[in-house]
Amino acid sequence: MTLIKNLQDHVGSRPDKFFKNTLFHSDTLLLGLNCLEPGQVQQPHDHSDQDKFYYVVEGEGHFWLGDNQMVVGKGNVVWAPAGVIHGVRNEGAARLTLLVGIAPAP
Amino acid sequence: MTLIKNLQDHVGSRPDKFFKNTLFHSDTLLLGLNCLEPGQVQQPHDHSDQDKFYYVVEGEGHFWLGDNQMVVGKGNVVWAPAGVIHGVRNEGAARLTLLVGIAPAP
Repeated sequence: MTLIKNLQDHVGSRPDKFFKNTLFHSDTLLLGLNCLEPGQVQQPHDHSDQDKFYYVVEGEGHFWLGDNQMVVGKGNVVWAPAGVIHGVRNEGAARLTLLVGIAPAP
Repeated sequence: MTLIKNLQDHVGSRPDKFFKNTLFHSDTLLLGLNCLEPGQVQQPHDHSDQDKFYYVVEGEGHFWLGDNQMVVGKGNVVWAPAGVIHGVRNEGAARLTLLVGIAPAP
């Protein structure tokens, strides 16, 4: 299998809901992309036994994280420890592209 | 603890060897930065029980990965499964900044 992937080769969109794509996957870690077009939402949820991060590759996200909401732009990492509710919506005018990791993998 | 970090606030350099900085750390995942100034090297090594990824944030790296060597630029992910030898050197003229994840955490 290829061990190098360019994110731009794996971004995408769906009209009905946000786009997900797995880049790499092992027992310990799932690494993938979440792409949200303007107006799309990843509803708040949690993972009881998995830590998760988002790295904002392009665009800007309105994140839920625990009891907080914040706007997070390109170049930032959001860390959602196991059990902490998290989600994101794209209120911007451009695609929101997130590199996402979940450990251990779902 | 803060759950959002901007990478540019956590980059850095050392004159004697490449710079490492932990962003977030749990039992399941260590997420951090590796910054290599021109000429600096992370010697090839492996982790027998941990999968690792590098995401190239800026610059260009000459990677070792198993028996292969390749030049990898900004926007790419390099995946080093457990047991696969990996390392990187910066032969460019600008800083190489890598977002790095190791699962489970060391």
